[in-house]
Amino acid sequence: MKKLTILKIGGNLLDSEKAWKKAMDYFAKISGAKILVHGGGKLATEICQKLDIETKMIEGRRITDQNTLDVATMVYAGLLNKKLVSYLQSLDANAMGFSGADGNLILSEKRPVKTINFGLVGDIKKINTPLIINLLSQKIIPVFSAITHDGQGQLLNTNADTIAASLGASLATHFQIVLKFCFEKEGVLMDPLNEDSIFPMLSQVDFLQQRQNGVISAGMIPKLENAFFAKKRAVHQVIICGVNGINQSKGTEICL
Amino acid sequence: MKKLTILKIGGNLLDSEKAWKKAMDYFAKISGAKILVHGGGKLATEICQKLDIETKMIEGRRITDQNTLDVATMVYAGLLNKKLVSYLQSLDANAMGFSGADGNLILSEKRPVKTINFGLVGDIKKINTPLIINLLSQKIIPVFSAITHDGQGQLLNTNADTIAASLGASLATHFQIVLKFCFEKEGVLMDPLNEDSIFPMLSQVDFLQQRQNGVISAGMIPKLENAFFAKKRAVHQVIICGVNGINQSKGTEICL
Repeated sequence: MKKLTILKIGGNLLDSEKAWKKAMDYFAKISGAKILVHGGGKLATEICQKLDIETKMIEGRRITDQNTLDVATMVYAGLLNKKLVSYLQSLDANAMGFSGADGNLILSEKRPVKTINFGLVGDIKKINTPLIINLLSQKIIPVFSAITHDGQGQLLNTNADTIAASLGASLATHFQIVLKFCFEKEGVLMDPLNEDSIFPMLSQVDFLQQRQNGVISAGMIPKLENAFFAKKRAVHQVIICGVNGINQSKGTEICL
Repeated sequence: MKKLTILKIGGNLLDSEKAWKKAMDYFAKISGAKILVHGGGKLATEICQKLDIETKMIEGRRITDQNTLDVATMVYAGLLNKKLVSYLQSLDANAMGFSGADGNLILSEKRPVKTINFGLVGDIKKINTPLIINLLSQKIIPVFSAITHDGQGQLLNTNADTIAASLGASLATHFQIVLKFCFEKEGVLMDPLNEDSIFPMLSQVDFLQQRQNGVISAGMIPKLENAFFAKKRAVHQVIICGVNGINQSKGTEICL
């Protein structure tokens, strides 16, 4: 099977032009087929504030209303996506930017309301695998922003880690996939106060144990859940790393 | 040769959701290969105002600085493009939205400074015709926003009429093209005060004469220049029309 690298870069990296350009310099050097998935960063929040769009929170979680989604679409699918694409083009990497609506690449459905109505948030239903394979065969590098659609004209906000994991899962029968979640740390930390205390490997059992101990907490939990989801769905290698782990063997490798 | 319809929809249409949805309903019904090109509308100006970005004017022409371009990228390549794409998807039209940076589809160069420095405005240098033909052969409907790139990481603002005309010119050896410039009037007016006074045909000689008479003025001049450019470059049929002319024989047909 051919190799495919899927790189997800997180919000914090996108807040600094120097940081994301460094990440893209490394990404462009990776050989073979590749896909980039990017999150948002602070810019959407800043623009919401300037446009007087209130951030609605319920039980500590942000609620996406239509105005917030419009700003997310502008910033993620518009500005950040096109800046990443044009920078990659300048490095001779033939990037092409997408939301899930484009070519019906990622179809999602509005998250059902149980106790909390998260608003315009989409859970992934279907990935247009044949079209992605076709694009990759033309040496195109798909660059996904974290916006999907429901097929009925409604755009939806979807977590970028989940998009990366689902792309991995849906393409794993066609490619030997290396999936890297790149964020501001060099890996999953054993001690949050020690940046060098990186787990070289992390199994599902370790994860459950460390979560119970409180060593792994907050935003790291959904990220690792996505990582284990991909690993269980036959993604060859899943790694949580920093910028320096993009084209080097660094970070925390997920094992079952 | 296979038929290809290229539809350009203008800024005014994009200001009203009802208007652009009607335009898209008609567009979705056109049979055969098709491409959509869209302009901006007032939203970018409104957002610039809310974000305290000044509109710089020199000799009555707007100057695009980096902040203005960022807003244009957000609004045109982000929000409007994705709204159009997701609405077309809901009509079972397999739309895919692009800026010129995506897949290096439209390469431009910053307009040289003569008397006026227009800022980050791009004149089209090269269209990636093979990739567009490949997308069309997969029954994808490319939806272009009016943002291009210079291949060196700089996004640039490019007139949407010019993009539509240049796409027509670059694809005319491969398709029998119908190029429609759709705007708020039903065609080119003989009398600006009479909405029904539409030229059924307009030749280059008529155009030059009517421009001298002052009958054709302002924004209509560059639009017609783009229309004649396309017609001279072997575009089969070029029409200036309103929403009702999208899938009917209405409007002003350009002849040489």
